[in-house]
Amino acid sequence: MKRFETVAIVGVGLIGGSVGLALRKFDLAEKIVGIGHRQVSLRIARRVGAVTNTTIDLSKGVAEADLVVVCTSVGRIIEDVRRVAEHCPEGTLITDVGSAKQKIVEALDEDLPRNCRFVGAHPLAGKEKAGAGNADADLFDGRVVVVTPTSNSRAEDYDLVEEFWEGLGSVVIKMSAQQHDEALAVTSHLPHVAAVALAASVDERLFRLSSSGLRDTSRLASGDPALWKQILAYNRDHVLAAMQEYGAGLAALYNAIRDDDQTQLEEILTKAKKNRDALGS
Amino acid sequence: MKRFETVAIVGVGLIGGSVGLALRKFDLAEKIVGIGHRQVSLRIARRVGAVTNTTIDLSKGVAEADLVVVCTSVGRIIEDVRRVAEHCPEGTLITDVGSAKQKIVEALDEDLPRNCRFVGAHPLAGKEKAGAGNADADLFDGRVVVVTPTSNSRAEDYDLVEEFWEGLGSVVIKMSAQQHDEALAVTSHLPHVAAVALAASVDERLFRLSSSGLRDTSRLASGDPALWKQILAYNRDHVLAAMQEYGAGLAALYNAIRDDDQTQLEEILTKAKKNRDALGS
Repeated sequence: MKRFETVAIVGVGLIGGSVGLALRKFDLAEKIVGIGHRQVSLRIARRVGAVTNTTIDLSKGVAEADLVVVCTSVGRIIEDVRRVAEHCPEGTLITDVGSAKQKIVEALDEDLPRNCRFVGAHPLAGKEKAGAGNADADLFDGRVVVVTPTSNSRAEDYDLVEEFWEGLGSVVIKMSAQQHDEALAVTSHLPHVAAVALAASVDERLFRLSSSGLRDTSRLASGDPALWKQILAYNRDHVLAAMQEYGAGLAALYNAIRDDDQTQLEEILTKAKKNRDALGS
Repeated sequence: MKRFETVAIVGVGLIGGSVGLALRKFDLAEKIVGIGHRQVSLRIARRVGAVTNTTIDLSKGVAEADLVVVCTSVGRIIEDVRRVAEHCPEGTLITDVGSAKQKIVEALDEDLPRNCRFVGAHPLAGKEKAGAGNADADLFDGRVVVVTPTSNSRAEDYDLVEEFWEGLGSVVIKMSAQQHDEALAVTSHLPHVAAVALAASVDERLFRLSSSGLRDTSRLASGDPALWKQILAYNRDHVLAAMQEYGAGLAALYNAIRDDDQTQLEEILTKAKKNRDALGS
């Protein structure tokens, strides 16, 4: 018998599709139901083998689920979890993959309809390319997944979400949604805005004079603007704090260059190199 | 008969070593003399096949050169070109690979000893890993090389430097040293300081919560602090101007996030994505 009878995935894009492919790779579910708005996305998810069944009718899609994974964009997760809770079997556990957690977890840390429960999660994995057509069974392999229970979460619900992600090859870290958002503001949302400001500042006449350095440093700016508007709004205060810290660091570097302060410049460049080398390739 | 009888390379690290390997790959020189300070670097250059001869004696190394390529770090190029001019055959052409050009080109745009001439160049190619051990015969293949003659440069000297780099597979662009430095401040030196400020701002306790986004965006911070101190000093005014522009872009993004100005946020994210997508992968 497999670990799950039926897993429902709401939103089968890159992440949802990769969850489905990984579930199949590790043979963890009898049925994987992909739920989406557009038949074309569902066809792609079926074609790549990410799901065994598909539907655009959420109420039918979750009707027999043991576990529901909501993989829609950050701005829709709260609403989608509530809709799922109205239609899934009584007492079903619902989780998500949103990259900002506090607003979502606070909104859903209440009695959901029909005794359903929500425990939030965020796999630190992705690609620039969206859609189930780019899904990858190994996307989560060895990657960190943060799971964010609250003081109201049941231990067995946390354990199930942990077991789910470990089953897909991930390393699970437990922390509060607030701690998650504060950390990810620095490690993910700040790099994004730094890359966006860089890409926006380069005149296209200079493109032919760029090399891999500019391309690497600005790569994140290719991300979907609609999705990133939501993430930045959902984690606003922490993102603003991280941007202030970054601005102060840039100002220190600016002053050291302007004043030809070799000692200060050496200190900043050396600290940055030490940190970057420690991050690995 | 090969295009060059003897090419001397002063400084056989990553770039100098790659010049040597590319010269051999395209069979352009009878003799390639590697000149350096340390026997160990010269041994590596010989071992990887980047040079046919080596010496730590610059005066002997350049004594028979048709062309001398100075590949030492930015802060040493002016002095090294002058030393070369004192010892190479009368009338020899000397070029370099420094990534800031105006100070170097201005300092050397004069009568060098014994009728030698200098024309500056900058291949837009590199790697994070230094040393001839990482040299690559294809490092310049299809990459842009900026050549920066002055009004005093002879046409035949420019032509020879152009022919040299085209012979190694590069695409040559001619511009003034000042134009080069203004452009590279944006396309190369700004990404570097943006990456440095980012890497310096991330506390090591957060490393486990980082993914490829932070690693890509901060990759340049692994560069050699000693070399980058020189580049930033040599191109100070243009780098400061580019950093001010970048700071203004970050501030606009900050304000849009703080004020939840969806229109402005959409505009910045969309412009950045358009630019970044146009840059290619």
